[in-house]
Amino acid sequence: MTEGQPNQRRYYLSDIPLEEARDRFFTALRNAGLLEAMPPEVVPVKAARGRVTSGPVWAATSSPHYDAAAMDGIAVRAADTTGATETSPVTLVVNGAERQAVWVDTGDPMPSGFNAVIMVEHLHTVGEDHVSIMAPVAPWQHVRPLGEDIVATELVLTENHRLTPADLGACAAAGLARLSVRRRPSVAIIPTGNELVPVGADLQPGDVVEFNSIMLSAQLEEWGAAATVVGPVRDSFVALRDAAAEALNSHDLVVINAGSSAGSEDYTALVVEELGELLVHGIAVRPGHPVVLGLARGKPLVGLPGYPVSAMLTSELLLQPLVKHWLGQAGDSQRPTVHAQITRKVMSSTGEDEFLRVKLGRVGEKMVATPVQRGAGVLMSLVRADGLVKIPRFSEGMDAGAEVAVELLRPPAEVENTIVAIGSHDLTLDLMSSFLRRVPGGASLSSSHIGSLGGLVALRRGEAHLAGSHLLDEATGQYNVSYIERYLPQVPVVLVNLVGRVQGLMVRPGNPSGIQSLSDLLRPEIAFVNRQRGSGTRVLLDYQLRELGVSPESVNGYQREEFSHLAVAAAVNGGAADVGLGILSAARALGLEFIPLANEQYDLVIPRAHYESDLLQPLLALLTSGEFRQAVDELGGYDVSRMGQVQAEIG
Amino acid sequence: MTEGQPNQRRYYLSDIPLEEARDRFFTALRNAGLLEAMPPEVVPVKAARGRVTSGPVWAATSSPHYDAAAMDGIAVRAADTTGATETSPVTLVVNGAERQAVWVDTGDPMPSGFNAVIMVEHLHTVGEDHVSIMAPVAPWQHVRPLGEDIVATELVLTENHRLTPADLGACAAAGLARLSVRRRPSVAIIPTGNELVPVGADLQPGDVVEFNSIMLSAQLEEWGAAATVVGPVRDSFVALRDAAAEALNSHDLVVINAGSSAGSEDYTALVVEELGELLVHGIAVRPGHPVVLGLARGKPLVGLPGYPVSAMLTSELLLQPLVKHWLGQAGDSQRPTVHAQITRKVMSSTGEDEFLRVKLGRVGEKMVATPVQRGAGVLMSLVRADGLVKIPRFSEGMDAGAEVAVELLRPPAEVENTIVAIGSHDLTLDLMSSFLRRVPGGASLSSSHIGSLGGLVALRRGEAHLAGSHLLDEATGQYNVSYIERYLPQVPVVLVNLVGRVQGLMVRPGNPSGIQSLSDLLRPEIAFVNRQRGSGTRVLLDYQLRELGVSPESVNGYQREEFSHLAVAAAVNGGAADVGLGILSAARALGLEFIPLANEQYDLVIPRAHYESDLLQPLLALLTSGEFRQAVDELGGYDVSRMGQVQAEIG
Repeated sequence: MTEGQPNQRRYYLSDIPLEEARDRFFTALRNAGLLEAMPPEVVPVKAARGRVTSGPVWAATSSPHYDAAAMDGIAVRAADTTGATETSPVTLVVNGAERQAVWVDTGDPMPSGFNAVIMVEHLHTVGEDHVSIMAPVAPWQHVRPLGEDIVATELVLTENHRLTPADLGACAAAGLARLSVRRRPSVAIIPTGNELVPVGADLQPGDVVEFNSIMLSAQLEEWGAAATVVGPVRDSFVALRDAAAEALNSHDLVVINAGSSAGSEDYTALVVEELGELLVHGIAVRPGHPVVLGLARGKPLVGLPGYPVSAMLTSELLLQPLVKHWLGQAGDSQRPTVHAQITRKVMSSTGEDEFLRVKLGRVGEKMVATPVQRGAGVLMSLVRADGLVKIPRFSEGMDAGAEVAVELLRPPAEVENTIVAIGSHDLTLDLMSSFLRRVPGGASLSSSHIGSLGGLVALRRGEAHLAGSHLLDEATGQYNVSYIERYLPQVPVVLVNLVGRVQGLMVRPGNPSGIQSLSDLLRPEIAFVNRQRGSGTRVLLDYQLRELGVSPESVNGYQREEFSHLAVAAAVNGGAADVGLGILSAARALGLEFIPLANEQYDLVIPRAHYESDLLQPLLALLTSGEFRQAVDELGGYDVSRMGQVQAEIG
Repeated sequence: MTEGQPNQRRYYLSDIPLEEARDRFFTALRNAGLLEAMPPEVVPVKAARGRVTSGPVWAATSSPHYDAAAMDGIAVRAADTTGATETSPVTLVVNGAERQAVWVDTGDPMPSGFNAVIMVEHLHTVGEDHVSIMAPVAPWQHVRPLGEDIVATELVLTENHRLTPADLGACAAAGLARLSVRRRPSVAIIPTGNELVPVGADLQPGDVVEFNSIMLSAQLEEWGAAATVVGPVRDSFVALRDAAAEALNSHDLVVINAGSSAGSEDYTALVVEELGELLVHGIAVRPGHPVVLGLARGKPLVGLPGYPVSAMLTSELLLQPLVKHWLGQAGDSQRPTVHAQITRKVMSSTGEDEFLRVKLGRVGEKMVATPVQRGAGVLMSLVRADGLVKIPRFSEGMDAGAEVAVELLRPPAEVENTIVAIGSHDLTLDLMSSFLRRVPGGASLSSSHIGSLGGLVALRRGEAHLAGSHLLDEATGQYNVSYIERYLPQVPVVLVNLVGRVQGLMVRPGNPSGIQSLSDLLRPEIAFVNRQRGSGTRVLLDYQLRELGVSPESVNGYQREEFSHLAVAAAVNGGAADVGLGILSAARALGLEFIPLANEQYDLVIPRAHYESDLLQPLLALLTSGEFRQAVDELGGYDVSRMGQVQAEIG
């Protein structure tokens, strides 16, 4: 088959709503008898944590299995103590055939015929053969009766119960050395694609690291399944069909990733049709879409999309309920939900359920949710996200400020303890977030990068605790102050220096295009890569171009916007652009050459209310810690001499 | 050393508040340099789920590491497409040295010099060597730029980050085949006690199954530590000292369990003093108290109490923060909290923090918390509990109806989906709870056993969804109806039969005391074991004694109350009593002989509002399912012929 010829497409996928897809899939599984709970297997109780009981667990023995002394002291017959008072103590014989009392320690079996214990502290006089007591005792006082905890034959645990540490203890106490638990569902994952190479391989253009199977396996293991990766398998119908057929022999579920779309090299749906029945091809979920659901050789056979966010999300939506069902567990996600205000307008297509990744934080009284990148290929959007917002397929999106329900991807306490930074990007913010995690109980730093001006607007709206900013006032040569006065007139602000840094032109090693200054950007063969509007770097560029009397339109590539210094450096490094404007540390990070243009001041803009809050103290403490300062200095290109110094108090 | 001689006690423990104990322990650890985070170890990225990063994780490669086509179609130079319209399409040469377009599939590297992709769907005519287009494209359209997801050198994850499936994918995408993670803290657990035998051993009186180490190991593993069990070690100072000394050589933390009190065979504190420094002996926590905290041979050496609930709780309060600190994680419990109304008055000693185990459920609008047994030895109280309520040491307890904060031991969704049954105990309720767990999405059944009358009172207070009841009206011979009319005058109720059952006298096999009827209970040598006031069985007994004209005082053992049929059977089986009144299934469960006295009717009392709720439908459906009926029938002693039939609708 010649590769890449579009006329070999044989069909198109047609997306159906998630609920319909799930329903079709689970109905077919039920009809085929494939929704039965996993059969039991027997494991030692010590190895059963997190496993699920396959039937009710009944106690084999009682605990305690004898009447036991519950105190250190003497065992007596309660009747022998009748009438003892302070004025007429009763003396009991301790040893010999006529003994009325027996020394016992906590846990000792009660001697036959004895039915109460007197604590050693309550004994009046103690001799070799006698003790005396000054109060009578009731029968069963300080006796731990047989079966107090567990009575043999009683129900210890129900069926389909996930075993906790306390459960394991109770089962062992009930005499059960081994437990019958549900076998883990066995899942084969078949990565497919000629481009796939293992992680760690030396990468050539066109190679793609095969990492989806690592994520999918980890997800499945988290849900209680046992995952095996088979392959990768080449883009060949026959190879994929044979691999799937073999995997179906020995697994409860087979997952092909990807080839689930309708392109010329997408064989997953064809394989399902060849081996069994194709139930669903395409679901109206974003990220998601090209999902294949089928039944083959009496097993579910599933194709998941290749983009990593799509793969993880659809796996969660479709495979998690299946695995949990097999383990007798409720299938729905058990993640806690919070309500939050969305910080930006979000448009969403009607006709598809969208799952938006958001960052969260509590700013003042408000829980705010800031959307991160939405691309299905941007796995970092999932890594950085604190939660998921579902935009139903009947909705066109929502306005900024709308209240949304957010399914949490992190523990609620961690979300509450998050410092929200929105504004300009600088590498030192990343370093800061990592340093903060060294502080026991210290906050997480959650940064969104939308440029300096965007940060000031976010502060005005009460959506962030602080903003990184490097906005030059051309009139005064001063950084940030006049912008704060203009954009945050109502908000008392403390302006704290983070770093001084050098901005300059980044070019490939050896400077092949011979770029010397900004005026080289006017050369028609030179491709520039710009930063987004509102970023301090863009402000600087526009200022410098004006100084030169140059119109932005005459710069080739002025329209191509990237959102961070590293993205600009990557575009230059990859050859997509010849030159970009950015900071020295970004150029150094990717080994680019750097032509310095200007020193600038990068500050943190912090509303006073937050500046004084407990939440921010670990961050402020970092700024004056020698260790952090040194780590920033080692990045190169930074002037750390004024780090942590208050530059201005405004308002 | 002679065993059990109280005059060999050398000291008493003195409880200090938890915070003080923690502070003393952690300060000493910090001063000794023992609070540093665990050192790194390198693991394959595939094996790193749940591990914690030991430093910031920086990307080794970009993802994608080249500019890639984001669609199937043709790669073009945007400039070549200028001017294309529907009326004047532009034709591009596909092959050869002069090519203006190159076929690409999604993910293919962009050919050098090409900077945009046109989707195959937008191509007008397609020939062997030419394609034509009807619209111009912008540069970078449908190109996935190098580093769109991850730019080499950028921060992928912070230090001290617990690795999720998405994180593993991102690390692999960033070219990291191996990750540096914190070594798991290594913990040795030394069970000590002459009475300890392994689970599964043939038990002799005085033997105690060693199950605490199973629970403690599972807890520690859950927190991220690696636990090893050493021993059990005999109650010998020398043996325990030597075992502890050896364990300290090769572990980060050594835990002795138990011997932590101040009895004659409690050596833990002495061992700590001998090997190092005793910091704390006794904490004012219930269940808890005899805890030993020390430093020895440059390691923390801890003694935990022997009672299982005390051991688990103090381990959580003291070891969890240490393990989490070593792993760079926030030490506090991350369990969600709900607010609930406590259903009973709870008295608590001032001077000690008490941790009360409660069962939870939402009844109507109210979340109700019902305390379970408080004994430190009743592990089942922890197994059955849904949450923990802390009663601070300055409090004397709380009144029924008080609002309390409950730390959840189960997922919130599971707690919300719980049917609360309070009332009489019957074994079929246990079976029912297990059967309910087979229903996908079905509720949990949470039963508290306080007798039939107690159940009606709980319903009146809105604290339960249903109550098991078998209250005989002596006047009418009818069960439950008159009691419901008296106790629940305002509540419309549906009375549904669960089972008919036989009540009778339970005696040991062979009936050694020759008991034939209730009148034998008057024989002075016969020890009886009773049920608690308010239970239907007690009502039955009192009725039958009155019929005989017998005064309860003349029954030896009438005062000894047990709270379930099985507990009564266990008392008879163990020899603590000669005879008890109970149901046939309990006698059968423990192999006792049974002398039938009366048939009775055991019903479920269900307020109509709950009867009609979605929550109860799976339970009501069970009552008419053949499978459940058969399982109850197989228990023996039950009449299931009217199971599920409505007996009366009242109010």
